[in-house]
Amino acid sequence: MPDPSLLPTFEDILAAAERQRGYVRTTPVLTHAAIDAEAGARIFVKAECLQVTGSFKMRGATNRLAQIPPEGRAGGVVAFSSGNHAQGVARAARLFGMPAVIVMPSDAPQVKMDGVRADGGEIVLYDRNRESREEISNRLAAERGAVVVPSYDDRDIIAGQGTAGLEFARQMQADGEALDALICCTGGGGLITGIALAFERLSPDTRIWTAEPEAHDDWARSLEAGVILSNAPGTRSICDAILTPEPGKLTFAIGKRLLAGGLRVSDADVRGAMRLAARHLKIVAEPGGAAALAAAVRRLPDELKGKRIGVLVTGGNVDMADFLKVLLSDD
Amino acid sequence: MPDPSLLPTFEDILAAAERQRGYVRTTPVLTHAAIDAEAGARIFVKAECLQVTGSFKMRGATNRLAQIPPEGRAGGVVAFSSGNHAQGVARAARLFGMPAVIVMPSDAPQVKMDGVRADGGEIVLYDRNRESREEISNRLAAERGAVVVPSYDDRDIIAGQGTAGLEFARQMQADGEALDALICCTGGGGLITGIALAFERLSPDTRIWTAEPEAHDDWARSLEAGVILSNAPGTRSICDAILTPEPGKLTFAIGKRLLAGGLRVSDADVRGAMRLAARHLKIVAEPGGAAALAAAVRRLPDELKGKRIGVLVTGGNVDMADFLKVLLSDD
Repeated sequence: MPDPSLLPTFEDILAAAERQRGYVRTTPVLTHAAIDAEAGARIFVKAECLQVTGSFKMRGATNRLAQIPPEGRAGGVVAFSSGNHAQGVARAARLFGMPAVIVMPSDAPQVKMDGVRADGGEIVLYDRNRESREEISNRLAAERGAVVVPSYDDRDIIAGQGTAGLEFARQMQADGEALDALICCTGGGGLITGIALAFERLSPDTRIWTAEPEAHDDWARSLEAGVILSNAPGTRSICDAILTPEPGKLTFAIGKRLLAGGLRVSDADVRGAMRLAARHLKIVAEPGGAAALAAAVRRLPDELKGKRIGVLVTGGNVDMADFLKVLLSDD
Repeated sequence: MPDPSLLPTFEDILAAAERQRGYVRTTPVLTHAAIDAEAGARIFVKAECLQVTGSFKMRGATNRLAQIPPEGRAGGVVAFSSGNHAQGVARAARLFGMPAVIVMPSDAPQVKMDGVRADGGEIVLYDRNRESREEISNRLAAERGAVVVPSYDDRDIIAGQGTAGLEFARQMQADGEALDALICCTGGGGLITGIALAFERLSPDTRIWTAEPEAHDDWARSLEAGVILSNAPGTRSICDAILTPEPGKLTFAIGKRLLAGGLRVSDADVRGAMRLAARHLKIVAEPGGAAALAAAVRRLPDELKGKRIGVLVTGGNVDMADFLKVLLSDD
C-alpha cells in the first residue's frame, strides 16, 4: 500500500481544473439511438478524442508541467509514451517554454510522432520488446537535468486526468441525468482512477468499470485477485495506447477501492466500436480510445443492460491508413 | 424587400436558445496547428456535425416545432429536405409527439433516410430534376392538416439556427479571442443569416462570408449583384446538403445587409477539407458541411490571411462508403 500522501484527492482535481484553464478543451458528451440499441442500454460518450492533442493526456501533462517551478524549467522534461502522453507533454512543454524529449516505441503510429515533432518535441525511439523505456528516460533526464514526467503513476497526472471525470459528472448533472455505470479503458490507469475520485464525490452511485484488450487484461485480473498482476510479455492488440504491462502502484491503490470490475474486448469489438463512432457520433476514435465503447456495445454485462452508462472515448490519434482499414472491415 | 416584421431579431435568437434547452447540444470549437498552417490563418472550427441528428438543423427544427400550439399538433408536420433538415424535423416531431412526413430527393444519402426513419418519420421520395418538392409538400399538408416546416426562409427557423452563432460568439469571448471573420456554407442561408444576427450584437467587427460550390454560387453572385440570382438547373456538386436553387427572400434581406461576400470551392477542395477534419480534428464532416473549411484552407482571400477565422462545419451525415472514397482520395 503506497503512502497515502502520494495519492491525489478530490481537491487536487479541482486545483488541476484551475491550472488547465485556457489550455484544455471542454469535450462534448455524445449520444445516438443506434448505439443505445447496439448496447441495450443508454450510452453517453465523452469524446476526449476531441481534446487538444487528440487525447485526454493533455489534461495530466498540463497539470504536471504547470507545477514545475520556473527555476526548474531550463533542463526541460523527459517522458516515455506510446504517443498520446507524448503529445500531451510535448504540447504542455511548448506552452510553458520547456524543451521536451520523448522516448517512444519504434512502432508508434506516425500520427503520434508527427504530433510530438509539430510541437518541437525531440523523439528518441526504442524497441518495445528489447529495451527498457524507463532506463532510457532516466539516463536522458540525468544527462540533461530534465524532469521525468510519468504517464500515470503520479499524483499530479492522476489529478490532471481526473478533470475529465469532473467535467463528465457536471455535464450529466446539468442534463438531469445520473450515470449508473461508467466504462473507461485502462493502460496504467491514470485516467480511470482520476475519474473515479471525481465521481466518488460528485456521483457516488456510479459504478466504474475498466475496459481492456482480452489478451491484455491486467486490470481485470488484478481487480479480481486484489493484487497487481502483469500481462505476459509480447501479447498483441490493435490498442497501442493502452498496452501497459501492469497497473500502477498508486492507480491500483485507488482502483482497488473504487472500481467495480474489468471488461475485456477483442480487436474485432474495437473495430466495430470505431465504425459505430464514425458513423453515428461523427468522431474518429483510435483503437485504444474505442475500447470502452467496444465493451459497452459488445460486452456489456447483463447487470448493466437497460442502465445509463458513461463511456470515455479517450483518443483519436490513429493513422488514416489504419482508420481506413477499420472502416472497410465488417467484423 | 420583405415585411420587416417577418425577419428575426437578436431577441428571437435568445428565445430560441431557451426553447432548445435539453434538446440541443453545445458543440465544441476545435483548432489544430496543421489546419492553421494550411489556411495561413488561425482557424476556429465550430463542429455542428456533433449536433443532435448530425447537423445544425436540429436547432431550427426545435425552435419551430416548439411553437406549434398543442391544438395544432395532431396533423403533424411536413418538410422537404435533402436530409439534414429532414432529420432535425423528424427528431423534433418525435420529441414533441407529432407525426412527420418528409419529402426527400430520391438520391439523398442513405444515412439521412435512415436517420429520418429511425425517428419514425415517413419519407416521400421525389425526383430532384423533374418534380417540385414544394408542390408535393403543400399537397401532403393539405391532405393531412399538417404544418409545413420550411427549411430556411422562416423567422423561427433562422432564429433557431442562429443559436449556433450565439454559442460560437460566447465561446470565443470565454476564450478571450475575437474573430476577424467567419465562414459558413450556404444553401438557403438560414444558418449564416441567423449567425450574422447573433454576431451583429455580440461581435460586430466579425465579417461574415458565405462558402458554396463553385458551380452553385448563387449567394456569391447575388451578394455581388445586390439582387437574388439563381443557379442554372442541373449543376452538380458532392455538397448535397447545400444545393438550394437560390437565396431565400428573408435570408437574402438579412444577408445583403450583414454579409461581406462569397467564397467558392471545388469538390476537390471539399474532399481535402474532409480529410483534414478527420485527420486533425477527429471529426466526420459531410461534403456540404466541409465547404466552409474548404474555403478557409484552400481559398482564403489575401485580406483574411493571418487573421482569426471562425468556420462552421455544419453536418456529418455522409454515407460511410462515400466517406471512405474521400479518405482514399488525395486531390
